[in-house]
Amino acid sequence: MPSATSDGFSVRAQKIELLALDVDGVLTDGRLYFHADGSEIKTFHTQDGHRLKLLQQSGIKIALITGRESPMVTRRAVALGIEHIIQGRDDKLAALQELMNQLGLDFFQVAYCGDDLPDLAAIHLAGLGISVPNAPPYIQDAADWVTQTPGGFGAVREICDRLLEARGCWERVVETFLQGASLSDHPLSDHSSADEEG
Amino acid sequence: MPSATSDGFSVRAQKIELLALDVDGVLTDGRLYFHADGSEIKTFHTQDGHRLKLLQQSGIKIALITGRESPMVTRRAVALGIEHIIQGRDDKLAALQELMNQLGLDFFQVAYCGDDLPDLAAIHLAGLGISVPNAPPYIQDAADWVTQTPGGFGAVREICDRLLEARGCWERVVETFLQGASLSDHPLSDHSSADEEG
Amino acid sequence: MPSATSDGFSVRAQKIELLALDVDGVLTDGRLYFHADGSEIKTFHTQDGHRLKLLQQSGIKIALITGRESPMVTRRAVALGIEHIIQGRDDKLAALQELMNQLGLDFFQVAYCGDDLPDLAAIHLAGLGISVPNAPPYIQDAADWVTQTPGGFGAVREICDRLLEARGCWERVVETFLQGASLSDHPLSDHSSADEEG
Amino acid sequence: MPSATSDGFSVRAQKIELLALDVDGVLTDGRLYFHADGSEIKTFHTQDGHRLKLLQQSGIKIALITGRESPMVTRRAVALGIEHIIQGRDDKLAALQELMNQLGLDFFQVAYCGDDLPDLAAIHLAGLGISVPNAPPYIQDAADWVTQTPGGFGAVREICDRLLEARGCWERVVETFLQGASLSDHPLSDHSSADEEG
Repeated sequence: MPSATSDGFSVRAQKIELLALDVDGVLTDGRLYFHADGSEIKTFHTQDGHRLKLLQQSGIKIALITGRESPMVTRRAVALGIEHIIQGRDDKLAALQELMNQLGLDFFQVAYCGDDLPDLAAIHLAGLGISVPNAPPYIQDAADWVTQTPGGFGAVREICDRLLEARGCWERVVETFLQGASLSDHPLSDHSSADEEG
Repeated sequence: MPSATSDGFSVRAQKIELLALDVDGVLTDGRLYFHADGSEIKTFHTQDGHRLKLLQQSGIKIALITGRESPMVTRRAVALGIEHIIQGRDDKLAALQELMNQLGLDFFQVAYCGDDLPDLAAIHLAGLGISVPNAPPYIQDAADWVTQTPGGFGAVREICDRLLEARGCWERVVETFLQGASLSDHPLSDHSSADEEG
Repeated sequence: MPSATSDGFSVRAQKIELLALDVDGVLTDGRLYFHADGSEIKTFHTQDGHRLKLLQQSGIKIALITGRESPMVTRRAVALGIEHIIQGRDDKLAALQELMNQLGLDFFQVAYCGDDLPDLAAIHLAGLGISVPNAPPYIQDAADWVTQTPGGFGAVREICDRLLEARGCWERVVETFLQGASLSDHPLSDHSSADEEG
Repeated sequence: MPSATSDGFSVRAQKIELLALDVDGVLTDGRLYFHADGSEIKTFHTQDGHRLKLLQQSGIKIALITGRESPMVTRRAVALGIEHIIQGRDDKLAALQELMNQLGLDFFQVAYCGDDLPDLAAIHLAGLGISVPNAPPYIQDAADWVTQTPGGFGAVREICDRLLEARGCWERVVETFLQGASLSDHPLSDHSSADEEG
């Protein structure tokens, strides 16, 4: 398992065009909060939300692929500008492949993060297979990289940071926020064209 | 206390036909969330749910035995296909014995996991007495095995994994999920008959 | 700060007739969950509830003294049979002293557990001043004993266990639960009279 | 990064007239709890609330500056007597500077605590830039001081304690609470005038 600072990691991370994420255990800590009437509470993390918006400005597409279904996931994804929201699909690999076909992407262009058996195939096949410290050990072992931050507490923030770094955007991110920029200043939205011009 | 990888553990685990679980502290972290109107929130874990479905496909029966009563437990159990839901019983040992009689099972065929004094007798008598790291030390000491994962954060997932392993199903589980199988493909539902034919 | 196994601890603990508890940070982890409409969620722990019932069977009185007010605290206290529920009192020492006068108790007969500055005077003066690992260091330093379990995760269960032990009830507790007894069997309710007869 | 006990810390802390706080990740642990209807739950900590009231009695002003908006933040701030509540501002540095102009304060008089990129500029420029253990490493590195307690679990209580200490109020705080004083006794409200007279 290469670490996030190894050459292997950078080589894989530089090619990523799509970050596909399991929801429960990755964007949440895997806990399901049930009310007496059967309705649920979902817990997301503020740092994850900020960074998913930023990562999209750098040109990477985001997808959520989850076996469960909830209006909270839909609403959160819309709030973050996430286009690809795939819910109620137990067959996550098939769902991912359909999306890849639709977007014209190959596995080496896909990063996938999951925390359990239903994610195993996608973690295994993705160009950058990612897991979290709250995943069972055999899932972590199958991943190219395991975040330090647990799911639901900023694991996705950490993933986005590493992808921004591999894309060569990180210094610009830190610089612009150090000057007081905000997301609405779109610090990375002209990234691709800037690169073309550079 | 034999570890999960010791011979003693395997010998005991291979004979299990029923996994009986306390709810609060085992399927949850033991915390009770109360609203002002007296209603409660229960928190379960996504990994536990997935594995309880899978363990049932391998032929093991599941029972929940809890001193409290809540519609969330009923609903969750039904969603996971759990047949035996025993709520509002402080006398858990008696409740377990009634169920064992009904199912024609002996103690050596029962795994029981609990986190506190009301579980002590069942942990002591069960063929495989299990506890969790969030149980008091004297409860953990009485158990044949203590999970590494705390209750409510995947302890039951860990139990199911070890039972599937002892049953000789684990390699098949990993293999099928690595190929992108999902629970609705019933990766283990033909397990018993396959064994009979084999 | 004597440890829970030192002679000093036992001497103090044997004399306790009243266990007075702060709520937030002791029976909960100190977090306040607010809904948009201003209503709150309170989180208690199942092990704490069980042991407070048991401790009362041994003859020790329980009081809750809290600066905040909530129907969840009232309801929980009633469910556990706790008689003395003092809410909305910032002046906890004065509230405790009023209760002590009413019950005819001296400080050496009182154990008090709290997690912050408003509890400091009561922790200092109580015969057994207790704090929790989630209290600031200077509050822990003022206590005769600090539980290992954090508030809201079983700290009160741990306190009750040590008080039952100091009272000489612990072996009987373990024995009866090992035989499958439940709280409704009142394993300790004849404790005082048994002692008188013994 | 000077520790909270170093000379550098004291020199900076003594000059603080305004404590400006990010909300999510500082007064909370950064998790966002969503109901199915889109409404949220916010979790604050009881120790933080107590100490923010006390710190205001010592003459320090408090401001909350958050990119999100919620009635829970407004209500909590009002309950704690916090005057300056700035919500829905992604450009936190600009928001802070507007407040500083309004109050006639310079950066060396401002302590700011935040947990992520939108806080970076304010942490960098504030006389006392503070972060929390749940912040990404590069945010912690930019701070003059990182609390030991995580955000949402008493980090703000720890900040207030250190500011009270630097102001020379700490011994008086401990003394008065040790005597059973409560916040409504206004233990520090005559602090400034006492200093002037002293």
